[in-house]
Amino acid sequence: MENKKQNILIIGAGLCGSLLALRLGQRGYNVIVYEMRPDLRSTDISAGRSINLAFSDRGNKAMKMVGIEDKVKALCIPMNGRMLHDKEGNTFLSNYSGREYEYINSISRSELNALLLTEAEKHDNVTIHFNKRCQSVDFEKTTALFEDYNTKDEFIEDADCIIATDGAGSALRKSYFLERKFLFSFSQQWLTHGYKELSILPSENGDYKTYKNALHIWPRGDFMVIALPNLDGSFTVTLFLSYTEGEYNFNNLTTPKIVTEFFEKEFPDALELMPNLVDDFFENPTAPLGTVKCSPWHYKGNTLLMGDSAHAIVPFYGQGMNASFEDVVEFDKILDQNLGSWETIFLTYEKIRKKDTDAIADLAVDNFHEMKDHVGQAIFQEKRKIEMALEQNFPQEYSSKYSLVTFNEHIGYREAMLRGRAQDKAILNMLADNVISTSDDIAAILDKVKTETEAILEDDRIAGLK
Amino acid sequence: MENKKQNILIIGAGLCGSLLALRLGQRGYNVIVYEMRPDLRSTDISAGRSINLAFSDRGNKAMKMVGIEDKVKALCIPMNGRMLHDKEGNTFLSNYSGREYEYINSISRSELNALLLTEAEKHDNVTIHFNKRCQSVDFEKTTALFEDYNTKDEFIEDADCIIATDGAGSALRKSYFLERKFLFSFSQQWLTHGYKELSILPSENGDYKTYKNALHIWPRGDFMVIALPNLDGSFTVTLFLSYTEGEYNFNNLTTPKIVTEFFEKEFPDALELMPNLVDDFFENPTAPLGTVKCSPWHYKGNTLLMGDSAHAIVPFYGQGMNASFEDVVEFDKILDQNLGSWETIFLTYEKIRKKDTDAIADLAVDNFHEMKDHVGQAIFQEKRKIEMALEQNFPQEYSSKYSLVTFNEHIGYREAMLRGRAQDKAILNMLADNVISTSDDIAAILDKVKTETEAILEDDRIAGLK
Repeated sequence: MENKKQNILIIGAGLCGSLLALRLGQRGYNVIVYEMRPDLRSTDISAGRSINLAFSDRGNKAMKMVGIEDKVKALCIPMNGRMLHDKEGNTFLSNYSGREYEYINSISRSELNALLLTEAEKHDNVTIHFNKRCQSVDFEKTTALFEDYNTKDEFIEDADCIIATDGAGSALRKSYFLERKFLFSFSQQWLTHGYKELSILPSENGDYKTYKNALHIWPRGDFMVIALPNLDGSFTVTLFLSYTEGEYNFNNLTTPKIVTEFFEKEFPDALELMPNLVDDFFENPTAPLGTVKCSPWHYKGNTLLMGDSAHAIVPFYGQGMNASFEDVVEFDKILDQNLGSWETIFLTYEKIRKKDTDAIADLAVDNFHEMKDHVGQAIFQEKRKIEMALEQNFPQEYSSKYSLVTFNEHIGYREAMLRGRAQDKAILNMLADNVISTSDDIAAILDKVKTETEAILEDDRIAGLK
Repeated sequence: MENKKQNILIIGAGLCGSLLALRLGQRGYNVIVYEMRPDLRSTDISAGRSINLAFSDRGNKAMKMVGIEDKVKALCIPMNGRMLHDKEGNTFLSNYSGREYEYINSISRSELNALLLTEAEKHDNVTIHFNKRCQSVDFEKTTALFEDYNTKDEFIEDADCIIATDGAGSALRKSYFLERKFLFSFSQQWLTHGYKELSILPSENGDYKTYKNALHIWPRGDFMVIALPNLDGSFTVTLFLSYTEGEYNFNNLTTPKIVTEFFEKEFPDALELMPNLVDDFFENPTAPLGTVKCSPWHYKGNTLLMGDSAHAIVPFYGQGMNASFEDVVEFDKILDQNLGSWETIFLTYEKIRKKDTDAIADLAVDNFHEMKDHVGQAIFQEKRKIEMALEQNFPQEYSSKYSLVTFNEHIGYREAMLRGRAQDKAILNMLADNVISTSDDIAAILDKVKTETEAILEDDRIAGLK
C-alpha cells in the first residue's frame, strides 16, 4: 500500500471516475482508466442540448481538493433560488438560503467531465482509454474483461485493485449480484414517474428567454417541469410525469396535438418559450427514475464500487454528482490514514460513507414530492418563509434542511437529514398548533425551533428510532 | 372471470400454494399445482427434527376461511410467552399478552403442509403434481417451463393465469427481474447474522426437557438462541449469530471444542439439555437471513407473485407463514368483489396488500434487535411490565405492538406498525422523563399513553411522515 507504484484500474471515466483518476494520479498511483464511450472532448455535442447538473458545496469541496476550483467556477451559472411558475404564469422567486453567499450552480456535465479528463491526463501515471466497454469483472482474480468498440476485440486487464465508477448500470455491481458468491444486499426502486428532456432555446440575439439565475419549477402536484440555464443562453428543460396515472401521462402523450394541449393547459408560459416543444418531445427518449442501494461495495481488497455504481439516486436534491464527488473526498481521507491494506481501506470507506449515501438517496425521493407538490402548499410556504428569516437573521445559528444538505459540506448527509427532518417537523407542528406564526418575533421563533428540534431528536433517540 | 372453469396454474405447493389451491378449488376454479419437491406426505421426515413455525391469529383466520380450524388446532402447541434464560440459568416467563386467551402456537411445517395438500386434493378440480421444477415463466404468453425431476423431461404448461407461490427464490420473480421488460422495483437485504438449527431431544421417557408452553429465548445482545416445542417432546433450537463479528461467530466456530466452549460460556443451561449439540452443529447447514420486497407483483392479468415469492421476511416476528396465509384471505376478499379481469384483481390485491407486507418485513427486522437485545434492558422491561398491566386491566382498550401485530387480525400490519411504534415511543419517553412509572395507578397510565400516542401520530401526520 505504501508502494505508490500499485496499479489501479478504474472502470468508467464519467464525472466520478475522472475525478478519482485525477486524485489518485496526484497521489502517485499508476492509474489506468477504461471508458466505454468515445472521448467527449473530440465528439461533437450540441451545446444547447447538453445536459446540465446542479453543482454545489460538496462538489466544490472536491474541486478544491484537486486544485481546480477556479477552472470549474468559470463553467458555473449561479442559481440563487427556485423560480416558481403557477398556472396563470405568475412567478415567485424562493431563494435557496437566507444567506446571500449560499447558492447552487448550473453546470454542463460534458464541460466539467472534459475538464476533469484533461486535468487527470496531465499526470504521466494516469492513462485513459476510450471506446473500451467493460463486459464483466472477475472479482476473485481482480481482472476485468473489456471489448474494444471499434475492433470488437476482447481483452483482459489485470490490476492490484479495481474501482468501478461505471454508473447506475455498473458491470461490477452486476457481477456481485449475479454470481452469488457472497451475501449481496441490493435494491433498485423505480418512481412511478419518468422524465423527458426538452429545451428553451436562446432568443434570436442569444439572450436567455427567462430569468437566468434560478432553477425554474412549474409544480403541478402530480407532475412538474423544471429548467436549468446553460452558458449559451438556452435552458435544459425536464418534464417529470407519471407513466400511467393521471389525465395526462407518458403513456397517453402520443400525438403532437395532445402534447400541445397538455402544455397549453398546464404550462402556458413555458410553452410560449418553447416553439420547439413537439420536436423535442418526440425526438427525445422518456427515461425512468431509479434509486440503487447495495452492500457490500467491495469484495475483499480486490474491487470497490464508487459513485453511481454504489448509490444511484433520483435527481431531485441536485446532489447526484455532488455525492459522487464527495465519495472521492472521503476516500482520499481514508487513504491519508495509511491503513495498510486495500481491504481495510475499502471496509473503512464503506463504513463511514454508506450511511450518508443512503441518506441522500432518501432525501432525493422526499424532495421529488416536495418539489412537485409541497412547494405549492400554504403550510410549507409559511415554513419556508420562517426558515429564510431565521437564516437571514441568524446566519451562524440556523440552517434549513436544504442548507444543511447543500451548503454544509462539513457535516454528513445523514446528520443533515436527521437534523433537517426534525427541524421541519418542529416548525410544521408549531405552525399547525399556532405555537408560532410568521408574524412572531424571529428571535423567539429561533428559541422555540431549537428547543422543539432537540426534543424531537431526543424522543427518537429514547425510542431507539434513527 | 365469472367463468369458474378458468385454468389457474400455481407454482409451488408449500404452505401458501397449497392453501391457495384449496381455496381456489373451493371457489370452483380448475387448479393445477406444480411442486418441485417430492410429496412430503410420502417422504420420511424425522419428526423430532422437523422445522416448526409460529402459528397465530392471522394464520388461523385463513384456516377458518377454508374450514379446517379444528384440524389445525390438533397440530398446535400453545406458547403463552417468551421464556427468557439468562447466563446464570435463571428463567423468567414474559407472556405475549396480558389477555389469557392470547397466545401463539408452535406447529410443524410439514404436518400443516400435509394437511393443506390433503384438503386441496379432496376437490376434483384441483390437481397437484410433485417433482416438477419450474425453470422459468414466460409472463407475456402466460406459460411456464417445468422439468420433471425423475425423467428430466421438460414441458411447457399453459394457463389462463399463473400464480407463483414458489418462495423466496421464486422463478417468476427472477423472470421479472432478469428480463427487464418493465420497471421492476426489487430489494434483497441480508442481515449480518445467519442461523443454524439444533435440537433438544425428548427425555428418555419422552417428556419435554424444559417448559413446554413457551418460546424459549437466550438473549445475549449480539446473538441469541431460541427453542420451540414439537409434539414429540423435542424442541427445535435455532442459533442466530453473526457470520463475522464478535468473539464467537459462524466463521470461527469451526471445531467441536470451540462450539462447546461457546455454549458453556453463553448458554450453559441450554447445553445441559443438548448432549447432541456438536453433532447437530456440524451436520446442519448455516443459512442466511434475508428480506425480499418487490413491485409490481403482477404482470398484466397473466401472472402474480404471492407469499414469500412477493415478500420474504426474517423470522423474528413469527409472522412469515401467517402473512402468506393472510395473503390468500385478502386475495379471496378481492375475488368476492367480482372485478371482472385478472388484471384488475391483481392490481387491486397489490394495492391493498403491499403496504401491509412491507410493514411486517420491517417489523420483523426490528424484532431481531428486540429479541436479542432489548428484552434484556431495564427500560424495555419496564415498558413491557406496563403494557402487560394495561392489557390485563383494560383488555378492550389497550393492545401492545406485539398484540396488534399478532392477535388483532382484523387490522392490517401497517396500521399495527404505526400505532404500535407510536405507543412504544410514548411509553419509553414518558418512562425516561419520569412522567409515568411502573408504580403509578394503571388507569392514569392508560390515559397518558393514549393521549401521548395520539399526539405522536398527529405530529407525524402534520410533518408528512408515515
